[in-house]
Amino acid sequence: MKTRIIAGLCMLPLLLFLYWGGWPLLIITAAICYIGVTEFYNGWEAIDVHPSKPIAYVMTTLLFIMHAVCELTEIQEAENYFLLIWVVLSIAVSLIYGWKINERGTYDAVATAIGLIYVVFFAFHIVLIDCTLHNMIWIVIIASFGSDIMAYFTGMLLGKHKLAPNLSPKKTIEGAVGGVVGAGLFCLVFGLIVDGPGMGLLLYFVLGAVTGAVSQCGDLTASAFKRKMGIKDYGNLIPGHGGIMDRFDSVIFTAPFVYMCIVALMIMIGSM
Amino acid sequence: MKTRIIAGLCMLPLLLFLYWGGWPLLIITAAICYIGVTEFYNGWEAIDVHPSKPIAYVMTTLLFIMHAVCELTEIQEAENYFLLIWVVLSIAVSLIYGWKINERGTYDAVATAIGLIYVVFFAFHIVLIDCTLHNMIWIVIIASFGSDIMAYFTGMLLGKHKLAPNLSPKKTIEGAVGGVVGAGLFCLVFGLIVDGPGMGLLLYFVLGAVTGAVSQCGDLTASAFKRKMGIKDYGNLIPGHGGIMDRFDSVIFTAPFVYMCIVALMIMIGSM
Repeated sequence: MKTRIIAGLCMLPLLLFLYWGGWPLLIITAAICYIGVTEFYNGWEAIDVHPSKPIAYVMTTLLFIMHAVCELTEIQEAENYFLLIWVVLSIAVSLIYGWKINERGTYDAVATAIGLIYVVFFAFHIVLIDCTLHNMIWIVIIASFGSDIMAYFTGMLLGKHKLAPNLSPKKTIEGAVGGVVGAGLFCLVFGLIVDGPGMGLLLYFVLGAVTGAVSQCGDLTASAFKRKMGIKDYGNLIPGHGGIMDRFDSVIFTAPFVYMCIVALMIMIGSM
Repeated sequence: MKTRIIAGLCMLPLLLFLYWGGWPLLIITAAICYIGVTEFYNGWEAIDVHPSKPIAYVMTTLLFIMHAVCELTEIQEAENYFLLIWVVLSIAVSLIYGWKINERGTYDAVATAIGLIYVVFFAFHIVLIDCTLHNMIWIVIIASFGSDIMAYFTGMLLGKHKLAPNLSPKKTIEGAVGGVVGAGLFCLVFGLIVDGPGMGLLLYFVLGAVTGAVSQCGDLTASAFKRKMGIKDYGNLIPGHGGIMDRFDSVIFTAPFVYMCIVALMIMIGSM
């Protein structure tokens, strides 16, 4: 527990990158993608499935270069087209990797594809949020880690009924509810700091609470993969926390969700 | 062979739907998606992997409804955002399907996700092309089927060197080259009819030839899946041709490719 807290505190300076946004955040996100997808593929190796790391690295690099080019030139509006093309290319290249049927299994190809979308593309939404509505990045982080922490403490104090005994034996329904409410409250406080008191705070609470719930879905999804792969943690990069994928399993679900909310909001207010 | 030709001729009226474009083409594409993904999932069943058909049907319906809403309202520009969200949702829902680790395998979840992207999302590009530059739909069809037919005849006449003996024992390198050149020539003739003589015809030839090559990649990808699944055909809907996925395995690769070319073209001429 002590190692866990110390390592957690050591990660606090990373918050600066969130505050800065822009290129620093882009670099950190790229690092999360590269390390995350490597850990995810290592997990597959444990059950004798061998996704292609070279494909993952090339496609991840392409994604970030593509974004940088869109930012540096005047074709930001075209980025969505590129992203859709990137998704198609990632899947196509991964499946073509499966052509060597004598050396590789279908699962090698399919796992390569899933890693690219589930880890890399999902995490890339951090950058998309930053470019669209920078402040919302905080919601992703506050709701994800807030839900984690509050679920842990509520579960410890009140936890009685198991949430998903097969997936994550220690999680309780009480903890999950505490996590959701906690995430909502943390985001409400964030809203209070950013926007001051007002009716908008209710929106912050609801957004935070729902993001907290989505965060727990990300957690359970990672648990499901780990159980099937027969591993406890994806890695051991962060002492007491496991690997990057163990720490960011909830963020890779909440980032696309928050981006989705931003898009919905922008369509509603007609700025799109 | 006779059944194959008769069935092929029976499919000719379908060309009317291509000519019309719009809603009729949308309905045909939706049908290809529903039947295609069902056949693809049935293939997985053969190796004891059980993707979720309900998830596929719900997500496919959502995709087409989303497109229809964008067309009917004034928010066409927002469609790319929706498509990206749809991709994320499809993967997330498929992975959540894998939570019941005692009843389901990781492969059930992963195969569900791949079916949604590789079959449904890839095929959906037919609709996207139709909405962006209707005439290019013909390139998809002419290059895919042209490459198929010309590869068959060139291979029969000149075929000596095997192309991919493990994947598709009958295919030859000579046939593949014949298919590529044939697709280019067919598209050149199409260009001549549509635009008349001129330097632009070279572009039609190159686009047709490259699309022909991509079409063969689609074919080989489907073959790789079928080999691993231990099945000869995905279905038997079209006598002598197999299932929808056997007939459209090349189209689901060429449609996104041609759409990619349209986007590149539009960015180059600055209309995006």
